[in-house]
Amino acid sequence: MENGTVNGYEMDTPKNITIKGILSLLMESIDGNNHSRSVISLGMGDPTAHSCFHTTHVAPEAVVDALQSGKFNGYAPTVGLPQTRRAIAEYLSRDLPYKLSSDDVFITSGCTQAIDVALAMLARPGANILLPRPGFPIYELCAAFRHLEVRHFDLLPEKGWEVDLDTIEALADQNTVAVVIINPGNPCGNVYSYQHLKKIAETAEKLKVLVIADEVYGHLVFGRNPFVPMGVFGSIVPVLTLGSLSKRWIVPGWRLGWFVTSDPSGMFRNPKVVERIKKYFDILGGPATFIQAAVPGILELTDEVFFKKTINILKQSSDICFDRLKEIPCISCPYKPEGSMAMMMKLNLSLLEDISDDIDFCFKLAREELVIILPGTAVGLKNWLRITFAADPVALEEALGRVKSFCQRHSKQFES
Amino acid sequence: MENGTVNGYEMDTPKNITIKGILSLLMESIDGNNHSRSVISLGMGDPTAHSCFHTTHVAPEAVVDALQSGKFNGYAPTVGLPQTRRAIAEYLSRDLPYKLSSDDVFITSGCTQAIDVALAMLARPGANILLPRPGFPIYELCAAFRHLEVRHFDLLPEKGWEVDLDTIEALADQNTVAVVIINPGNPCGNVYSYQHLKKIAETAEKLKVLVIADEVYGHLVFGRNPFVPMGVFGSIVPVLTLGSLSKRWIVPGWRLGWFVTSDPSGMFRNPKVVERIKKYFDILGGPATFIQAAVPGILELTDEVFFKKTINILKQSSDICFDRLKEIPCISCPYKPEGSMAMMMKLNLSLLEDISDDIDFCFKLAREELVIILPGTAVGLKNWLRITFAADPVALEEALGRVKSFCQRHSKQFES
Repeated sequence: MENGTVNGYEMDTPKNITIKGILSLLMESIDGNNHSRSVISLGMGDPTAHSCFHTTHVAPEAVVDALQSGKFNGYAPTVGLPQTRRAIAEYLSRDLPYKLSSDDVFITSGCTQAIDVALAMLARPGANILLPRPGFPIYELCAAFRHLEVRHFDLLPEKGWEVDLDTIEALADQNTVAVVIINPGNPCGNVYSYQHLKKIAETAEKLKVLVIADEVYGHLVFGRNPFVPMGVFGSIVPVLTLGSLSKRWIVPGWRLGWFVTSDPSGMFRNPKVVERIKKYFDILGGPATFIQAAVPGILELTDEVFFKKTINILKQSSDICFDRLKEIPCISCPYKPEGSMAMMMKLNLSLLEDISDDIDFCFKLAREELVIILPGTAVGLKNWLRITFAADPVALEEALGRVKSFCQRHSKQFES
Repeated sequence: MENGTVNGYEMDTPKNITIKGILSLLMESIDGNNHSRSVISLGMGDPTAHSCFHTTHVAPEAVVDALQSGKFNGYAPTVGLPQTRRAIAEYLSRDLPYKLSSDDVFITSGCTQAIDVALAMLARPGANILLPRPGFPIYELCAAFRHLEVRHFDLLPEKGWEVDLDTIEALADQNTVAVVIINPGNPCGNVYSYQHLKKIAETAEKLKVLVIADEVYGHLVFGRNPFVPMGVFGSIVPVLTLGSLSKRWIVPGWRLGWFVTSDPSGMFRNPKVVERIKKYFDILGGPATFIQAAVPGILELTDEVFFKKTINILKQSSDICFDRLKEIPCISCPYKPEGSMAMMMKLNLSLLEDISDDIDFCFKLAREELVIILPGTAVGLKNWLRITFAADPVALEEALGRVKSFCQRHSKQFES
């Protein structure tokens, strides 16, 4: 096992950059000694790091009840507890023109596992999948481990990060198995209109590919467009809806996600397809049974006021981000975020003196100002930045003030 | 997506039988109406179904504390919380001649996910893996999904289910990546001696293959041999140790497992291997952060009395099984179980009148006697039966009484 080999054979490790990998390197680059200021991270999409974001009391209470009942220490069915599948089917059906059944819902260990299941399900020799650029790199990593070819279509910043449908048509061929749509958008903070989603569904139907709808930020919207689940168009094209409690309930560490066949025409109910999905779930470790058992209560009892409070803070913090960044000449934000917890900003390197690219910008910023921002390269856009605005407004103001100082210090001095 | 295809392509579903699949069919075969007797299942290895088995109060208390602190709702590192990795390293090191470090430990969603990680790590085109027969069919299913060729070696009932080392040598070639050893044994209830484990390690070293040591039933022993972890021989051959809280703490539904490199010579610490393992963990949904956070307290505070109580019940129930089955002529048990929660019995079909094989036996038994037993075919041995004796002694007596009646009723009538 010398030189990355096992039994003489090279192990084939994907070369992909991961968000966690690059954020760790940024954090390590900060010299731990003698800093009077604290490190502020706007890198990870984990709002629990900030005290203004916390879950509703309903959620841990329901989990404690399930745990203390002593009834949920055993195995759940690998596809999930029946009552949990039913509750999620009902929850998602509220926003659909048809009713999902329990059989459409499979419980996963967070949305990450739902992504892995979706890609593993569809992988076969020669297959390819269409992914958005910028996007969420777990898709690329899963595809690499499954030997699924990735083809990228662009999201268009000048059109509110809408999908470039022409590129999708040009990229797809008979080996294309699915197109991935993340809405509300990570990393762009976009929220697609009903009309745009319908066009996506029609394009996918024309190309005979499934839509994987990543709705982990579902309902976290605060702009013009309401949140429309892709499943609304499930009668146009079969949709796999991926989601979780993580973001809306601010419990990403609970690992309670779902993989849902939003497909009223029933193509996913083909016994062979169901058998394959079920067998795949047999080899997965799903979420803890007692957390699953708490889900019906959590979905039923959570007050609308809790959701509104989260959305108000997100609106406020995204406004702070947008307004403060407007004051910085070398950074431009083509789109004011209307949902999710992240936004993308473009670096204008021609205005900076000694910054070679987005990665250089982020490492120098980390070392000099103790602010962690994700370089756009990590999500597919070189010389852009991704900022997570799910942060305490005071910390956000402080961090963006530091970014401004950093940019001023590194600005080119033009003759006047 | 007609006929099990997506976009015109056949989906390649493994043909493997799964334990859960066959147990569901057996359960469904029982007509739900008009039964005065209850259904007794000796099919699943989930002791929580029986009231005599329950976890220590320490475990849920530690989880409630972690949850109610509000500090563990966010993401854990994908490889696990540092304090959890450290606590498991210390726990496992108690039984080893060297110290594991935190970096050796990766937290998984139950032992099932640890199995999947191990096989996914090792899969590459042309590779094969050596699995025990009888065994635990999740290995075969994982291997099928990873396109890893399976080669079976026999466990020898007449030698206390020891590994047939000659077959291992005959099966292995330059494409063999690992040999899987389940100890204490599922489905056989065997516990290997220090000497036998050492011989396995030496054979693996000679063949230059890793050992995957499935120790999910670790410490659950009640016979001559003490439990010796395979990692004791980690300086002879690199060992991947798989385990979980599930069985020893009787919380299989908590999905808290581990994947551990027990390898004092440090071959797994090659940066490329570590990078591959870490990247693979990036796409997994691990166990809930607050359950991980409870692990150090659970490992530290659980009283030895709790473990002894579980082992006493298992000894008692395995004795009941062995003694009652001796009274049934058509069933023979070559080995009195000394560990785990399951045992294998051989059917003598020549003594039965209208039973064609183990599957026929189990379906007729389910329908006529409302007792669920797993046909040996599901674990690789045709015309054997697997009984899980982790059951309430009263229910076990009742179930085995019904098996006896069933066998008497179906016995051939010999002329006397």
